[in-house]
Order: sequence, then C-alpha cells, then structure tokens
Amino acid sequence: MIKMYDLAAAEPDRRLSPFCWRTKLALAHKQLEVETIPWRFTDKPQIAFANWERVPVIVDDGKPVVDSWAIASYLETAYPARPSLFGGAAGPSLARFYNAWADTALQPAMIRFNALDIFNHLAQEDRAYFRQSREARFGTTLEEFCKDRESRLPAFTQLLDPLRQTLAAQPFLGGDAPLYPDYIVFGSFMWSRSICPLRLLEPADPVNAWRERLLDAFGGLARRAPGYW
Amino acid sequence: MIKMYDLAAAEPDRRLSPFCWRTKLALAHKQLEVETIPWRFTDKPQIAFANWERVPVIVDDGKPVVDSWAIASYLETAYPARPSLFGGAAGPSLARFYNAWADTALQPAMIRFNALDIFNHLAQEDRAYFRQSREARFGTTLEEFCKDRESRLPAFTQLLDPLRQTLAAQPFLGGDAPLYPDYIVFGSFMWSRSICPLRLLEPADPVNAWRERLLDAFGGLARRAPGYW
Repeated sequence: MIKMYDLAAAEPDRRLSPFCWRTKLALAHKQLEVETIPWRFTDKPQIAFANWERVPVIVDDGKPVVDSWAIASYLETAYPARPSLFGGAAGPSLARFYNAWADTALQPAMIRFNALDIFNHLAQEDRAYFRQSREARFGTTLEEFCKDRESRLPAFTQLLDPLRQTLAAQPFLGGDAPLYPDYIVFGSFMWSRSICPLRLLEPADPVNAWRERLLDAFGGLARRAPGYW
Repeated sequence: MIKMYDLAAAEPDRRLSPFCWRTKLALAHKQLEVETIPWRFTDKPQIAFANWERVPVIVDDGKPVVDSWAIASYLETAYPARPSLFGGAAGPSLARFYNAWADTALQPAMIRFNALDIFNHLAQEDRAYFRQSREARFGTTLEEFCKDRESRLPAFTQLLDPLRQTLAAQPFLGGDAPLYPDYIVFGSFMWSRSICPLRLLEPADPVNAWRERLLDAFGGLARRAPGYW
C-alpha cells in the first residue's frame, strides 16, 4: 500500500496541508489505497530519506515521490489503467495553470484569513517554526497579518470570479466529473476548512455547491475529515 | 469560405476585439480560411440576421454562429479532422476556466490601461457609443478611469503570476504547442496591442516570450496586424 506523509495539526487526525489534500484526492481518484502518516513541520528528519523537506511525500513500492504536482504526474504514468486524472493528452499541460493560480493567487489570499488559525491548531513544537518562518515571509506578526480579516471577504469573493463563472456552467472544473484541477483548487478550500471557522463562501455561490460536491466525493473522504463549515 | 464580422477601429485594418482575436486564432489553428468583415459597434443592424449584437459572428456555409466560446466549440465539432483546439476529451471543460479568468480578471485589469486608447482609435460614430456605455459601466469618465495607469503596472504584473509560473515551465498553456486556452489569453494581449502603446510586459518575462511566440504563429498572423509593441 502507498504510504503518504501528511501534515497534521496538534490533533493527529486534523490534516491541513492544501498540497497533501491535492494528493489524497488524486490517490482516491486513482482508486489507490493509502496509509497516511501524520507529519509535523518539525519532523523534517522523518522524510530526509526522500531528500526533501516538505509534504506530501509518498512511498510507492519502496520508491519515494515528492511534491504534489510531481506525484500527480507520477500516478498518471504509473497507473495508466486507472481513471485519468487529466482527461486527455493536453490535460497535464492544461492543469498547470490551475496549479499556478491556486499557488500564486488563491492561497496567498486565503492565508490572510487563516494564518493565525493554522498557528493555533499546530502542535506545540511546530508553533515556533511556523510563527518565525511566516512572520519573516509576511513581514509582520500573524496577528497583524490576519487583523480585520472579514474586511477582505469582498475582494476574496471577486478573486473567485473565474471559478464562479466556470462552475456556474459545469459541475466540475473537469466537466461532468472531477479531474486533478478540481483537486488542486479544492485542496485550498480543505486547507482553510481544516483549521479556520470563518465561512469563505455564501451558500448560494456556485463555488460553494462545487465544494459540497467534492466534500461528498469518494464516499465523503473530505467531509469526514476534522474541520469547520 | 467562412465569413467573420470583426471589430475594427477607425482604420479598418486595426482590429481590436479580444474575443475576435480568440476566434481568428482558432480559425487559423483549424486551418480554415476566413474573410473578415470590418464591423463597428454602431453596425448592429449588420449582424441582426444572427439575432446578436456583438462580435465575433461567423457565417459558415450560410449558418451563423455567435460568441467566441460557442464558435470554438462549433469549430471543434464541425471540423473534427482538423487539429484539435482542446487536446482531449476534457479539453473543452478545462478551457472554460481560462475563458473565465480572461473575462473576469485579466481584461478588467487591462481596461484600466487601454480604455481611453480604445476610444481614441475608434471611428467617429463609435466614440459616442463607447464613451457613454463604458462611462456608465465604470461610473466615471474614461480619462479618470485610466489616470495614472502606470501606477497599476505592479499589481498587473502580480495578476499575471499564474500565467508566468505556467509559462516558465512550458512554452504554451496547451503544452508544447498552443491550444484554444492560449488563444483566449493571447486575445486579451492582442486587444491591448492593437490600440495601446503602453508596454505591459518586461522583455525578460516568460509571459512576454510566450506572447512573442504567438505573434509569430501561423506565419505571423498576429504580428502583421496593426498595433503597438
């Protein structure tokens, strides 16, 4: 069975990494069983065997594969008889923009809502690491960074317009059924859900309906996970 | 031969519509010849036969097809033996997010640079229509809307991050060769190029290199068109 190192909060079952969520949904799509191993930011020695410092890391039949994007490509190539994650020859190339949008637009907006919630959910030994590394990156304290976060909701709602317009026209980014681009973007929402009680979507938003569909996918894999709203 | 109504500036050869550019590149990709008919905003009666008020409108063997997205779908279905615009079964669904991103994020940012340039390039009879309709939409004058536009360049550069990250990893959004998602996004840059002298991309930007490749595509179809930079 595939093993996967999966970022965990203080509660070992609370899994917060958006990148790990991308991978867990991709594994489910490929109908591959996985044993997830709770991993903390300060557990870097635990994945040193893979010559890597971040998760997800998977180990498939003794072979380590790192980085969510590379893992998706690996799974598609290694398991060609399983349902395709990309839906056609150009699919992997066309998926890259979704990955880049989630990484450079969606998540940088989301972290203004959830950075302090992440901190508050982390295991004690991870908190110092997280505060120091993130405050250096943000140039301010976590508290300042997330202050008045509700005032950012209108801009965040507007940022989602491309997603909203797409999902008003079709049930998934991949069309009638989800593909890896869905898991990329949904992974960001799972990140937020895992630790942040602030509701980011109105119930009537087509993005919310899509999120609900993905929470239910694979027998409720995502919905069963500890989280909020 | 397919006929296409194509938005023109005062100079009939200066074609500015981003949506028409999407269609012209799609037609070239499908290796279909087209006769373009210069059309002005105030020429609505000319396309009333199609029960539509905007361009692009194409007429293929007597059949009108309207709206750039619908035209791309039509071409893919009507000419299945020609090179695919979408690159696989999920391609049309995966392309929709690009269309929505161009329409709701990219072009709303670009028009803060080029609205007044559009006005200044339009035929006399189109100017009143454009000023009135756009000033009502923007809630201010074209001059105010585009004031200090250079100050918006850093935010615009950041908006392009998903595109930049993607095109740093592969030559086209479609992968090794362009697909309809490339033409969608490139159409927005052709819009700007056709009427706006302000350079929106640094020479070293991977987005710029991609744009140059598409200017050269199809024997320089886009580069030959009247425009700036």
